Amino acid sequence: MRIVRAPEELRAACDSARAQGSRVAVVPTMGALHKGHATLVEEAARRASTVVVTIFVNPTQFGPNEDFAKYPRTLDADVEMAGAAGATMVFAPAVDAMYPAGDETRVRVGKTALALCGEHRPTHFEGVTTIVAKLFSLVGPSVACFGRKDYQQLRVITRMATDLFLPIEIVPVRTVREADGLALSSRNRYLREPDRTRAAAIPRGLTAAARSFAAGERSASALEAACRSIIEPSVDSIDYITVANADNVEPFAKDAHVPDRALLAVAVRVAGTRLIDNVVLGEEPAPLERAGEGAA
Amino acid sequence: MRIVRAPEELRAACDSARAQGSRVAVVPTMGALHKGHATLVEEAARRASTVVVTIFVNPTQFGPNEDFAKYPRTLDADVEMAGAAGATMVFAPAVDAMYPAGDETRVRVGKTALALCGEHRPTHFEGVTTIVAKLFSLVGPSVACFGRKDYQQLRVITRMATDLFLPIEIVPVRTVREADGLALSSRNRYLREPDRTRAAAIPRGLTAAARSFAAGERSASALEAACRSIIEPSVDSIDYITVANADNVEPFAKDAHVPDRALLAVAVRVAGTRLIDNVVLGEEPAPLERAGEGAA
Repeated sequence: MRIVRAPEELRAACDSARAQGSRVAVVPTMGALHKGHATLVEEAARRASTVVVTIFVNPTQFGPNEDFAKYPRTLDADVEMAGAAGATMVFAPAVDAMYPAGDETRVRVGKTALALCGEHRPTHFEGVTTIVAKLFSLVGPSVACFGRKDYQQLRVITRMATDLFLPIEIVPVRTVREADGLALSSRNRYLREPDRTRAAAIPRGLTAAARSFAAGERSASALEAACRSIIEPSVDSIDYITVANADNVEPFAKDAHVPDRALLAVAVRVAGTRLIDNVVLGEEPAPLERAGEGAA
Repeated sequence: MRIVRAPEELRAACDSARAQGSRVAVVPTMGALHKGHATLVEEAARRASTVVVTIFVNPTQFGPNEDFAKYPRTLDADVEMAGAAGATMVFAPAVDAMYPAGDETRVRVGKTALALCGEHRPTHFEGVTTIVAKLFSLVGPSVACFGRKDYQQLRVITRMATDLFLPIEIVPVRTVREADGLALSSRNRYLREPDRTRAAAIPRGLTAAARSFAAGERSASALEAACRSIIEPSVDSIDYITVANADNVEPFAKDAHVPDRALLAVAVRVAGTRLIDNVVLGEEPAPLERAGEGAA
């Protein structure tokens, strides 16, 4: 397992791998790796012989009052987990290597980045697309794996790749869940009991709505209400519980008839920690039907 | 000479050229080619065996009241001139090939794009960087040639390439001038006499300031005044006449002591046509000393 710190060393290593006929995949992460990340790396390793896991807590995707400073940094454990999952290289640059003095370029996606999390974290996705564009440029991957847990991020990055003609297949990878259905997230480390148990209302709410959808419910407001009625009593606040177009994440009107394959996305706060989750109605099993499948 | 219309055909042709060991250069243009463009293509042909000239009147870099609709379109003549100068491929896509339905990604450079033309054309450089990022992605060039006549554009694109870690050498190419010093520009076609003759005050003004600089003048306001006193009587309005940092185009304060290698940049309007020009003081000869060198 090779650990690379310098951007130009990463580029040289990836150029060299490609020159030797290797297909290159990248898995961009902020570290604090868990089994969800491992699943991304395993998927990448099925698709490419050179698998680069990037570990970089990206300052530009955090708002001024968010958790950049306290975000967990666990590089040694991350390197071990990435290697065990099939990574051939870890790229862990310093902040000023990715944003040197004078840096002033930003990549921004429009409508897909504006709703849902974009409304609550107005600068977030521009930070994400900018760092991912930089990483794509250094790695030159054929494949990049992103988790479905961060569903809007997945759609924003897919949009960027399409619009900028990047020759990269963006691969969505299923969400890994704890035994009680909670989606794995690096931010779950912030939760102590009884908050951790309260957070399990999120997958229960999503599951209630998914079952209602499966039983024929097609009203956006009824699906959102089915989810909200379970989540609301357990969490401290709700940023959104919204049924939206699964491609561009545009919310449906409350009186809309929801088509097959619609996104139900949730963002809530529990004891100061912001948690997100989602299910694509009519496309994937409800969260509780996948609970505990891949978690340690 | 191959003429390509479809983005994916361009990518395949460039991939294939690289696979055969060819170095690839790109010269992005909006067509209406003149000897200034030919000089860019000749420079590209000295540096690469595959030379792609792109011809695309890019709507996103025009403001709502600018000349997008009337911008000259002369594809047959352009193809001939590009080929004569050493191009091996012309890419001339339709607007909806470069901006398909659903397109919503933009690339934006910060400070370098804000002063000078950025103040007067607030959406211009975002359009430029977005289309150039798309073209770079399709072509995958080692080298890209841009004219020094559009000096701020050159710096903005260099900034973008640096910040996004694009492995592309951005090559600045000297401005080609008519016998009276007027910088070649596709927009010169808009000028009729006596407006065309009036426009020659621009290189005379730049030359006066460059000679004053060569004689030891280092006051920003005195250099600007030397330029303005010659240009102002001949043009209809002045957007700016400004001495600025030659790297990030940040204007110097009026009372600043101007260092060697400073940009003096001009934007004016003559009979409804916006014209720009510049000289880098202490780095290149004054415009009148290069007049007529390369023009037909």
